Amino acid sequence: MPLPYLTPSIRVRRTPFSRRVEEAGVRAYSVYNHMLIPQSFRSPEEDCAHLKQAVQVWDVSCERQVEIKGPDALELMQMTTPRNLSGMADDQCYYVPMVDAQGQMLNDPVAIRLAEDRYWLSLADSDMLYYCKGLAIGRGLNVEVFEPDISPLAVQGPKADELIGRVFGPEIVATRFFRHKTINVQGKDMIIARSGWSHQGGFEIYLDGSEHGESLWDSLFEAGRDLDVRAGCPNLIERIEAGLLSYGSDISIDDTPFQVGLGKYCDLDAATGCIGHAVLTTRQDPDRQIRPMAVDGLAVPPINAYWPLTDSKGKAAGHISSITWSPDFQTNVAIAMVHRNHWTPGSTLQVETPEGAREAHVRETFWI
Amino acid sequence: MPLPYLTPSIRVRRTPFSRRVEEAGVRAYSVYNHMLIPQSFRSPEEDCAHLKQAVQVWDVSCERQVEIKGPDALELMQMTTPRNLSGMADDQCYYVPMVDAQGQMLNDPVAIRLAEDRYWLSLADSDMLYYCKGLAIGRGLNVEVFEPDISPLAVQGPKADELIGRVFGPEIVATRFFRHKTINVQGKDMIIARSGWSHQGGFEIYLDGSEHGESLWDSLFEAGRDLDVRAGCPNLIERIEAGLLSYGSDISIDDTPFQVGLGKYCDLDAATGCIGHAVLTTRQDPDRQIRPMAVDGLAVPPINAYWPLTDSKGKAAGHISSITWSPDFQTNVAIAMVHRNHWTPGSTLQVETPEGAREAHVRETFWI
Repeated sequence: MPLPYLTPSIRVRRTPFSRRVEEAGVRAYSVYNHMLIPQSFRSPEEDCAHLKQAVQVWDVSCERQVEIKGPDALELMQMTTPRNLSGMADDQCYYVPMVDAQGQMLNDPVAIRLAEDRYWLSLADSDMLYYCKGLAIGRGLNVEVFEPDISPLAVQGPKADELIGRVFGPEIVATRFFRHKTINVQGKDMIIARSGWSHQGGFEIYLDGSEHGESLWDSLFEAGRDLDVRAGCPNLIERIEAGLLSYGSDISIDDTPFQVGLGKYCDLDAATGCIGHAVLTTRQDPDRQIRPMAVDGLAVPPINAYWPLTDSKGKAAGHISSITWSPDFQTNVAIAMVHRNHWTPGSTLQVETPEGAREAHVRETFWI
Repeated sequence: MPLPYLTPSIRVRRTPFSRRVEEAGVRAYSVYNHMLIPQSFRSPEEDCAHLKQAVQVWDVSCERQVEIKGPDALELMQMTTPRNLSGMADDQCYYVPMVDAQGQMLNDPVAIRLAEDRYWLSLADSDMLYYCKGLAIGRGLNVEVFEPDISPLAVQGPKADELIGRVFGPEIVATRFFRHKTINVQGKDMIIARSGWSHQGGFEIYLDGSEHGESLWDSLFEAGRDLDVRAGCPNLIERIEAGLLSYGSDISIDDTPFQVGLGKYCDLDAATGCIGHAVLTTRQDPDRQIRPMAVDGLAVPPINAYWPLTDSKGKAAGHISSITWSPDFQTNVAIAMVHRNHWTPGSTLQVETPEGAREAHVRETFWI
């Protein structure tokens, strides 16, 4: 069937950058946190090649923020995650698995500490605003929980430092990884962090106030013309090559952090305030885990439901959740959930694609 | 700009009926509760005319269910809503505004009572699973909160009774409005309710087990061939004519139930267990409210952001949130949020559309 159209509506929110994104020729969207997210401009292949050699500006407003503010803010934050938040500095960002009382994944946001009593969660695709509100109300915590008018704009690629330096100066380029500083846009202070959902390096600017969106966008494009700056978006090829997981695709509410390879962020000795702490201490030895896989043959079709993996005897061995053809590595690159019997690098399994079975190989590492 | 495509992904879930929906020629989708929702088959106008004269089968799997089960189920349910749930019968469905501690709208689901200690919420577009989990954990309630494998399939239109009678028998046709009974599909008991998101009458079948989806779909189409049964979907024209509100478009987290015309479902004398009770008692006299509006001139373009309303002096008077051309009523039919100074039927305001200003008239009632 041909690709379906996405119907316009208010329920699927536009962003402060949507007009610029459309002027730049966005071809496909998806919906993320009830908001538009661009999915391709020229083609995923061409967008990927450009991302790896130049600099792109990404409208990732859909990484909606939850602000948690008040005397009990840290207590509420720690209730949601097995990562130990007690040592976080005021300019620090943490990637945090967030779990329920069974230790199952609800989201994997970047948490940003703004002050001891004030945090943002920069969300993956689920309404953590609702979970945090429910917890705070149920427990009677002294916090405010709300969605501020903050819309992230990512600047990604090997020339991101050059572009950010031109617009915001060398001290901003000196920002360390997963730390944030303050920039001024049209007289308004905003947060910028060295972070982003690619492996090419760069920044995320937390646009504070939708009305400043187009001027921020324009200032980046004016300063970067000779750098071949383009509108881009999280790129399926590059993010699989880099092993960046997508909540809702590679991670679900049926998974613990240990099953999705986020055990390294769990500090169960320290994070005793986490609601899922008791259950997680008993679930540190998972029966399945995420692995990089290479799939033989020509380019596979788009994936829109798990592709089952089986072993040589036809027994279930897991599934592939993300896959695409990599022009650079000349293979189909994939993210898979693999049962423990088969997760050793070098294991070969069969994957059932809509176009028939293929051989699939567990790898030691992702590609980049 | 041309309509953008919607990129396939696992994060935007397919439904048990997606293959049949695509075989039936779906042209456009939206995304609702992280799941595909069909938006048009032939055209919104042709789909609307057919809905009003025949019978349609709608894939509304995206009305995801939250199951709340256990000794504290009713207490948790009542915490979320100012509607009094104490008199609900075991076969009853209630339309319920759900609110936070400030009395602001989080969702407007249909609540289904299955037993005194077991309920489903058939959701509008927000993750109430997360809010209910948070509340239950925070308050330490003795309940399970989860998403069961239930996918609603609506049968709507004036010939819905005839079709349902043929497939499930006359006792099922005798089901009263917003009551449910049990049917058997391929040996499995499932719930059917007289309900649905149109004004044309009909039923919603709560498919229990994705594996039975296609056979349920096929049985309806086989039995209804001479009734001209077709695949359909919630229709923008018909739902505005009928005044059916859409959470995320017409209702937002900034609104109280009183502002969106749901005050009639609030029973603050009885529903004292509602978390928002204290605040709502002080907010029963809203400053703005939802009104039907007719907008002059030819057919308007699609709406994807609020269109501002102003009075004759140019002062802000509200906004339009849903609008489309109605072939039957030969006017643009709209749902608007209007300030109290202007909400009297007959008031005329100016609306700013992307194609210029138009006159807009507050009506007494919706069209059907």
